[in-house]
Amino acid sequence: MENQSAAMKQVSYRDIDIDGGFWKEKQLLIRNVTMMNVYRRFAETGRFDAFAFGWKEGDPNKPHVFFDSDVAKWMEAVAYLAAKERCPELEKIVDDTVDLIEKNRMPDGYFNSYFGHIDPDGRFTDRSKHELYCAGHLIEAAIAYRDATGKDRFLRLMTDYADLIYDIFYVKKSAAFTTPGHEEIELALVKLSEATGDPKYTDLADYFIRERGREPGSPHAQDHAPVADQRTAEGHAVRACYLYSGAADLARVRGDSRLRDAVTAIFDNIVDRRMYVTGAIGQTCVHEAFMGDYDLPNMTAYAETCANLSLALFARRMTLLEPDAKYADTAELVIYNSFLSGISLDGKSFFYSNMQENDCKVRRREFSGGHREFCPADERVEVFSCSCCPPNVVRFIASIADFMYGVSGNTVWVHQYISSTSEFDGRKITVRTAYPYDGTVNISYSGAPGKLALRIPGWATEWSLEIGGKPASGDLRKGYLYVGVNGGDEIKLRISMPVRFIEANPEVWDDAGRVAVARGPIVFCLEGKDNGRLLRDIRLDPRGRYSFRTDAELGVPVLRTTGYSRYWNEDRLYGAPAPLVSREVTLIPYFAMANRGETDMIIWVLPKY
Amino acid sequence: MENQSAAMKQVSYRDIDIDGGFWKEKQLLIRNVTMMNVYRRFAETGRFDAFAFGWKEGDPNKPHVFFDSDVAKWMEAVAYLAAKERCPELEKIVDDTVDLIEKNRMPDGYFNSYFGHIDPDGRFTDRSKHELYCAGHLIEAAIAYRDATGKDRFLRLMTDYADLIYDIFYVKKSAAFTTPGHEEIELALVKLSEATGDPKYTDLADYFIRERGREPGSPHAQDHAPVADQRTAEGHAVRACYLYSGAADLARVRGDSRLRDAVTAIFDNIVDRRMYVTGAIGQTCVHEAFMGDYDLPNMTAYAETCANLSLALFARRMTLLEPDAKYADTAELVIYNSFLSGISLDGKSFFYSNMQENDCKVRRREFSGGHREFCPADERVEVFSCSCCPPNVVRFIASIADFMYGVSGNTVWVHQYISSTSEFDGRKITVRTAYPYDGTVNISYSGAPGKLALRIPGWATEWSLEIGGKPASGDLRKGYLYVGVNGGDEIKLRISMPVRFIEANPEVWDDAGRVAVARGPIVFCLEGKDNGRLLRDIRLDPRGRYSFRTDAELGVPVLRTTGYSRYWNEDRLYGAPAPLVSREVTLIPYFAMANRGETDMIIWVLPKY
Repeated sequence: MENQSAAMKQVSYRDIDIDGGFWKEKQLLIRNVTMMNVYRRFAETGRFDAFAFGWKEGDPNKPHVFFDSDVAKWMEAVAYLAAKERCPELEKIVDDTVDLIEKNRMPDGYFNSYFGHIDPDGRFTDRSKHELYCAGHLIEAAIAYRDATGKDRFLRLMTDYADLIYDIFYVKKSAAFTTPGHEEIELALVKLSEATGDPKYTDLADYFIRERGREPGSPHAQDHAPVADQRTAEGHAVRACYLYSGAADLARVRGDSRLRDAVTAIFDNIVDRRMYVTGAIGQTCVHEAFMGDYDLPNMTAYAETCANLSLALFARRMTLLEPDAKYADTAELVIYNSFLSGISLDGKSFFYSNMQENDCKVRRREFSGGHREFCPADERVEVFSCSCCPPNVVRFIASIADFMYGVSGNTVWVHQYISSTSEFDGRKITVRTAYPYDGTVNISYSGAPGKLALRIPGWATEWSLEIGGKPASGDLRKGYLYVGVNGGDEIKLRISMPVRFIEANPEVWDDAGRVAVARGPIVFCLEGKDNGRLLRDIRLDPRGRYSFRTDAELGVPVLRTTGYSRYWNEDRLYGAPAPLVSREVTLIPYFAMANRGETDMIIWVLPKY
Repeated sequence: MENQSAAMKQVSYRDIDIDGGFWKEKQLLIRNVTMMNVYRRFAETGRFDAFAFGWKEGDPNKPHVFFDSDVAKWMEAVAYLAAKERCPELEKIVDDTVDLIEKNRMPDGYFNSYFGHIDPDGRFTDRSKHELYCAGHLIEAAIAYRDATGKDRFLRLMTDYADLIYDIFYVKKSAAFTTPGHEEIELALVKLSEATGDPKYTDLADYFIRERGREPGSPHAQDHAPVADQRTAEGHAVRACYLYSGAADLARVRGDSRLRDAVTAIFDNIVDRRMYVTGAIGQTCVHEAFMGDYDLPNMTAYAETCANLSLALFARRMTLLEPDAKYADTAELVIYNSFLSGISLDGKSFFYSNMQENDCKVRRREFSGGHREFCPADERVEVFSCSCCPPNVVRFIASIADFMYGVSGNTVWVHQYISSTSEFDGRKITVRTAYPYDGTVNISYSGAPGKLALRIPGWATEWSLEIGGKPASGDLRKGYLYVGVNGGDEIKLRISMPVRFIEANPEVWDDAGRVAVARGPIVFCLEGKDNGRLLRDIRLDPRGRYSFRTDAELGVPVLRTTGYSRYWNEDRLYGAPAPLVSREVTLIPYFAMANRGETDMIIWVLPKY
């Protein structure tokens, strides 16, 4: 297993054509609606103009140190979309932006729309100013754009810039700081080595990670200890998971067992101690950070969209280190819940922070004023002043196929079930499924005889397998069912999706006495719009009947059942225990929350035993 | 009823001798321990020295605008104690302080240890500086001291001061403001009229209340609307209930029906919408204020000791307006729970804010730094910089008998059951009871034939009455059992005190799915010291057996029962519903919480139905 896992490679989104089902719809939505909507909001707020270096004192929309990263992620999304079907309008915007980068970069290759134009003397003097973070995102975008379109000018510019960074930070050590304040460039540099064949960028990534925390700093930026010695997830959650992703990449490409031990322990610390039931992370808006083990307050959860998706990115990389389905299970949990809640059903607006519970009156009281935009918001908005999430969401959806397959020798791991047609390494695999709403997955395999490793989700308690219409079996190891297949085989995996109740570890103060309701990978919630104001008093019966049908207004399937509320027959605050009366209850997928105006919401509901 | 109620008078503590039982112990404790302990802390912090007007720039302990009120309440407590048994050591301190007041007051009678000495030009220029509040407390202390000891110099000084305030605020209207920023003087002025026979002070109180909110100000100081038009409890909770108490006094002595309607509605708003199950009020530390209806977060409850006891003071006054037991029920709830929690069992230390729930890790995280002392604290302390509560607690305990009786014509209302011997209006009444731990109350009545109106607590579901050993009955109206009695009658009231579960109105978000446990007037809580860390996961059976025995360490009776916790047999954050296993659970009286070091605490526990 050890050798096999070390060799597992991810199958690229470029080899996978999502041609139907849940994710085809999402990709069409961002292609047709979201991309231009985000573009317009970014253009209105000066993010694209910043690349023209034309801003003058007194003008609106002064460039901000993180504008480059916002635009870069949007350009990266254009690339992923263009890889499937060219998009001239969007590519024109990228090409124009690359023109400006080429025109305005410094003679030595440096490019940053804030420092290059507003504060040239400040470059590489202040670790906290997101410079290397912006560079990392530009590098990722440039690689994707070259891969998708064949146009390599953007990548050449960014390779020049990476060479400069290598020279300044690794060779000359002439910058005012050693490691980035906001991590991201580490994983981008590993990608750049893979994209160019030049190992020097990975050397630089390795250097950034080895240097981090040698001089102990603050948990906020994960430099409280050397990265290889860390065992818990600390500080700013986005920075943290970008760092852990880069460290997992290095553990893989350099065979660094100390980093491997670190990221393995940190991953478990997150999912077994510090993650909401939706896969959301970052428990507090104070420094947008992780808190202690089991400290998971729902009402004040921070749970930034970027943090949540970065956990999926981290999990995807962990899969390549060890074929244990807990990694793809976590990616799945995030993808269908705390990531997807970040974008509205109409594709136009976004959450920065994803509520895990909403009592509107409390939220209005506690999160008013300047904090309202970020710190647990209650309505998605089209653009934020710190607008990292919208472009992160589109690049994530556009490249969702990256989560699907791993391959090593004659074994293909199917991590995620997505309707698609794929061709790689001489195989052609077609998947047809109504996942995540139905657990039946039909797979047509052609190619040399080999093995499919089918993920049996951690939540699944009943499943069956057929090949060619006949019951078949396989070897279940760490959540993957290893099944021998031959060219022409039709494989049918049926995973039952009954409604299930989830409890939290008794250590979690907020969730005690309550359950979360899930069906397949989808976690559900109750909204005031469907169920009135007194959500926390509703009881659900674990033995009750739950219908699962598409709601006309929301356009997604919802659960309906008979639940119970107390009959409180007096105008008093306190009294003797009241009887329960039955009532209809509607549960909607958590990702569909907050699409019908401000309303109360809970995930953790009372069970009626 | 209407006429009868209008005429009900409170029986003074001076006519009641608490000669055994629960409150005798408490009064001995404050006489022997608390009074000198508070005195020493106040002396160390310059509160008594302030009266000497000797402070110079650079000296420690600069007098504060509210120091006079702290000392005044302590002196008032001395008076209540001295009324029963003289206390030369304490009286000497009062007399010395009165010497200083006499020596240092201004020629026109003005006295304030801050403005008189530090900022003479500032007097009556800033409404927010507690000047009239300090005056009110000094007036209350002076009345009590004259009543208790016969020494009337203090009262003469304060009458002079009140005359000056009358002249400045009511006659000349020459102050820079119209009404006090922090109410209290209103109720003191009504007392002063009763103590001196001069109605002018009540005229001034009436003026302060009529003027309040005529120019709409802020809810913080209850001047968002004219007082007579207010219907909800708003703003700073202590100020609010002092104001409502004064307004209830005026409604009574002046027959002001508009004020009566206001305080009646406000009282109901508090107890039916904005009060914790312990009788605590003031839901938020933000401006120490009331919040909206049903908005009763436990972890962040403010629930200041002074606010809680001020609700009892307000309730006591409402009883005189209308013989409805809901007022004495509320007073009882506060007295045995959220008031009594304000002082440690050893009588030495105090809570400013009374926790309604404590997860130590959350409290350490959320209430750190400067806020820690006041804003939900987790350990009682001996003195605070704003030390209004300790002297308020001692004066309250020393005058607890004021809550016991009302009288009108031949009817005596017994509002609270306290072991005591009383003589008033030609009657002698002896009460023997182990209340609040046992509901049997033995009353010996001598005097002319009449009626006893015995309060049947709102929580009581079973009770019985005997007179002379024979079953007797009475007429139950609004919570009082009206019973005819003759001289020499021995009355035995037996009120059952089974353990009972209390639910909160489903509107209360925090308490949904949980119950509070009470026995008689005592609300219980679970502490980590007895029950481990996972308090919120413990289930209690409403049909379970509960033992009620004195705990050797705490010295108070506690409840013990078999409860249930989940058996969570894996190192995971989320999983399938876990089985329950039985375990021992100990519940202690809420008032006894936090006497054994920092520990988690909950009131609202899961029921096992």
